Amino acid sequence: MTDFGARLAEIVGAGHVRAGADVSADYAHDESLGAEPVLPAFVVTPSSAAEVAEVLKAASAAGVPVTARGSGSGLSGAAVPRADGILVSFERMNRVLEIDTENHVAVVQSGVTLQELEERTAEAGLVYPVYPGELSASLGGNVATNAGGMRAVKYGVTRHHVLGLEAVLATGEVLRTGGKFVKASTGYDLTQLIIGSEGTLALVTEAILKLQPRTAHQATILAPFADLDSVVRAVPKVVGSGLGPLILEYIDAMTMGAITYTADLQLGIPDQVRDTAQAYLVVMLENRDTDRLDADVEAAGELLASLGAVDAYVLPGGSARKLIEAREKAFYTAKGAGADDVIDTVLPRAALPAFMARVTAIAQANETFVVGCGHAGDGNVHLAVFQKDPEKRATVLHGLFEAGMALGGAISGEHGIGHAKKKYFLDLEDPAKIELMRRIKSAFDPAGVLNPGVLFD
Amino acid sequence: MTDFGARLAEIVGAGHVRAGADVSADYAHDESLGAEPVLPAFVVTPSSAAEVAEVLKAASAAGVPVTARGSGSGLSGAAVPRADGILVSFERMNRVLEIDTENHVAVVQSGVTLQELEERTAEAGLVYPVYPGELSASLGGNVATNAGGMRAVKYGVTRHHVLGLEAVLATGEVLRTGGKFVKASTGYDLTQLIIGSEGTLALVTEAILKLQPRTAHQATILAPFADLDSVVRAVPKVVGSGLGPLILEYIDAMTMGAITYTADLQLGIPDQVRDTAQAYLVVMLENRDTDRLDADVEAAGELLASLGAVDAYVLPGGSARKLIEAREKAFYTAKGAGADDVIDTVLPRAALPAFMARVTAIAQANETFVVGCGHAGDGNVHLAVFQKDPEKRATVLHGLFEAGMALGGAISGEHGIGHAKKKYFLDLEDPAKIELMRRIKSAFDPAGVLNPGVLFD
Ligand SMILES: Cc1cc2nc3c(=O)[nH]c(=O)nc-3n(C[C@H](O)[C@H](O)[C@H](O)COP(=O)(O)OP(=O)(O)OC[C@H]3O[C@@H](n4cnc5c(N)ncnc54)[C@H](O)[C@@H]3O)c2cc1C
Ligand SMILES: Cc1cc2nc3c(=O)[nH]c(=O)nc-3n(C[C@H](O)[C@H](O)[C@H](O)COP(=O)(O)OP(=O)(O)OC[C@H]3O[C@@H](n4cnc5c(N)ncnc54)[C@H](O)[C@@H]3O)c2cc1C
Repeated sequence: MTDFGARLAEIVGAGHVRAGADVSADYAHDESLGAEPVLPAFVVTPSSAAEVAEVLKAASAAGVPVTARGSGSGLSGAAVPRADGILVSFERMNRVLEIDTENHVAVVQSGVTLQELEERTAEAGLVYPVYPGELSASLGGNVATNAGGMRAVKYGVTRHHVLGLEAVLATGEVLRTGGKFVKASTGYDLTQLIIGSEGTLALVTEAILKLQPRTAHQATILAPFADLDSVVRAVPKVVGSGLGPLILEYIDAMTMGAITYTADLQLGIPDQVRDTAQAYLVVMLENRDTDRLDADVEAAGELLASLGAVDAYVLPGGSARKLIEAREKAFYTAKGAGADDVIDTVLPRAALPAFMARVTAIAQANETFVVGCGHAGDGNVHLAVFQKDPEKRATVLHGLFEAGMALGGAISGEHGIGHAKKKYFLDLEDPAKIELMRRIKSAFDPAGVLNPGVLFD
Repeated sequence: MTDFGARLAEIVGAGHVRAGADVSADYAHDESLGAEPVLPAFVVTPSSAAEVAEVLKAASAAGVPVTARGSGSGLSGAAVPRADGILVSFERMNRVLEIDTENHVAVVQSGVTLQELEERTAEAGLVYPVYPGELSASLGGNVATNAGGMRAVKYGVTRHHVLGLEAVLATGEVLRTGGKFVKASTGYDLTQLIIGSEGTLALVTEAILKLQPRTAHQATILAPFADLDSVVRAVPKVVGSGLGPLILEYIDAMTMGAITYTADLQLGIPDQVRDTAQAYLVVMLENRDTDRLDADVEAAGELLASLGAVDAYVLPGGSARKLIEAREKAFYTAKGAGADDVIDTVLPRAALPAFMARVTAIAQANETFVVGCGHAGDGNVHLAVFQKDPEKRATVLHGLFEAGMALGGAISGEHGIGHAKKKYFLDLEDPAKIELMRRIKSAFDPAGVLNPGVLFD
């Protein structure tokens, strides 16, 4: 080990630094299809904010790049380290510090997974309602990507549920931002600025998360439609109904076929309906009272019929759960089917029909196959792009992002920019905004050691 | 007029610049009790973002301070200008640009008032659910202070409902941030950073606001309690019940007496209950269905009784509205009664009993009279402080803020720091956070012309 490696070992303990051939290939990548894997020079696994601070001080002083890693489930390549850098993995900082049933908050270390949080909150009759599909993801990763998921239509995303952070600056200061309260007007909101910053502004060591009472009863309705256009046109009406859906997903016929096949899932839809359905809407409702839930399900069924659904099936609990799980794993299904990239453009939900028309035109013009599903309720379209030729693929992605932005959208709704989408971000975003973001980056990280190459060149 | 005045007239038109004796005294102050009024050298009333940009370029080049003003209803002195500076008043930029019923958003110029927005959204069956009491306030002011109000316990605050902004940097660039969507992970969230920055980072010219379907039915319950401690202990239980109150306010007996007297409001509470009640909880529920609302009201009544309420009165619509209005005007009642300052510390709601005990101790130790009410559901305590001696008053305020922070709170929940609370902010906040905020400020405003003296010295 080099001198620098010895310094790191002094900080975190020799057993918690790996270098060279001892670094597992797992640390070279996240789940992004578009980012090149890179092995870091060092992997360190600190156990406290104080250790993280010392690592960052040493890195800043030596000008060594630092990349944070939660569970490596990200889809933008933002957790891919530098070859000459340190990967700080939060796997040992995985304690739920507190489930506070009076204030309805959880305080967690950043390495805690969504799965663990779900179990611990369930015991207390509470819930962290944000639900980014991949439950192995860490809360630190969720914070850094502003993770979204299927329930955003009702509850918003990570940003709306993180009340405070403990975060370490590149210069080694440990800050506490926010607190166990939903609002403050006491200086700039550092919590919100760090959320979604993909490990480029600060490393997060703790998060204070807003919980709420768990709603006892849920019901899932599956509505096949004859065409995708009718589905996306139905979305604003369902949101506007006041029924307050917990989940409102669209799944196109190709994707539905693939995910139900992979999950070996029977939905009990008659063959002739299935054969003609071009797209599906999945509507999940919840209520603390079963009678109210039943009434809402009936109202939703009628509404969907009036909006052109071929039919509306209330799925039994088991199938509903399996369908949602299969939807969560749609990414792996697409990957398994040979998808070359997956994107998650977000746009005003009423712009979905216009966007989907543009998607079809761009795909056809470039002989590319594009299928998808999406968090329709919040305008977040997940598209799997099948195109082996890298240049053509780049043309398609550029076209899709440009089309989304022209309709008032943004490149990524929840996955982030990372390395994989950086060139499109720098190309398509307003240069004045990029320059301002660079200045903010320097305000946090004057030596530029935190995740260089992510967001900016 | 000076050369600089002539330049301003070139930009906004001669009729829209006032200087010297032509500047009305109204522009010298907001509603803060603790900030000194100051007349600005110039008042300009631009009509577009382009004009705002030119004003800011000229000011940055000449090093002239610029303070934004919405309706001047702020309570921290943050809209008080510099004697050598420009006050940019948004009174002419007061158009609702769009009520988009498909995406459920409003697009407004920053000078639009809450009252106007309420009327326009009502026509469309939608609502902007944030409800900071003073309806003459502008949306620009709401954004700059991250305004809160009584409905935060259910719907959150301004921060949770602003989806995007048009904002002008001190250097004259006009930026568009966010959009008609609830989430993005596409670079740093500039929208969130500008929210709550009290006019020190950028001037806001437009805001995209999230709306939702208007809920048809509401009911208000007034529950007297024998002591304040029981009230604040009841708060987490009511929040935890799953009833989802729209409003959850506490009002102490002194304040209740004063506001109902001022509003000439009869609540129909028997004399002997009123004479022994030390504090009240106001619970407002809403539902789109009257049967469900009735059932919830009954459940809430039982819950309140089990939590020690002396009784629970469902107020008739008229009285309910008047009580809420009187509560909104509590500030003017306190001012009329001779209050010397009003503060709005926020803390974890379960810390309310401990905080109120500290308030009593600090008040007694300093021979000061302190009464209050508060957005109990979100831990935001509004206290009127009666103490003529400025030094003693400063000791009391310092003590109250310190006590709130020691319990995990922050100085201001919704009013902001401005000039009035700056010395406490700089004294009590972590210096590393203040330094980081100063660097962020420089990243936005290198010449330091935007609202100097607010937040920082
Ligand atoms: C099958 C599948 C389904 C998915 N579904 C969703 C979905 O519905 N919604 C959604 O939003 N995402 C989804 N994702 C993406 C992914 O789960 C999220 O991006 C998640 O937030 C990443 O968490 P992680 O712990 O794996 O982070 P990583 O991949 O390890 O890192 C992601 C980013 O966070 C940074 N980071 C990690 N920890 C910290 C820390 N402590 N401090 C500072 N920065 C840190 C990294 O540097 C990197 O920039 C899905 C992924 C998969 C594979
Ligand atoms: C009776 C009463 C009740 C109140 N109740 C509440 C309440 O319940 N909740 C609550 O949060 N507040 C409350 N307030 C405080 C006040 O209404 C809010 O702070 C409101 O947001 C101020 O809006 P304004 O337009 O009056 O802003 P101003 O007072 O004009 O300005 C406030 C701040 O915003 C900045 N600003 C204004 N416009 C812009 C712009 N376009 N761009 C950039 N910066 C700008 C100013 O520079 C200043 O820093 C109350 C006030 C009163 C008098």
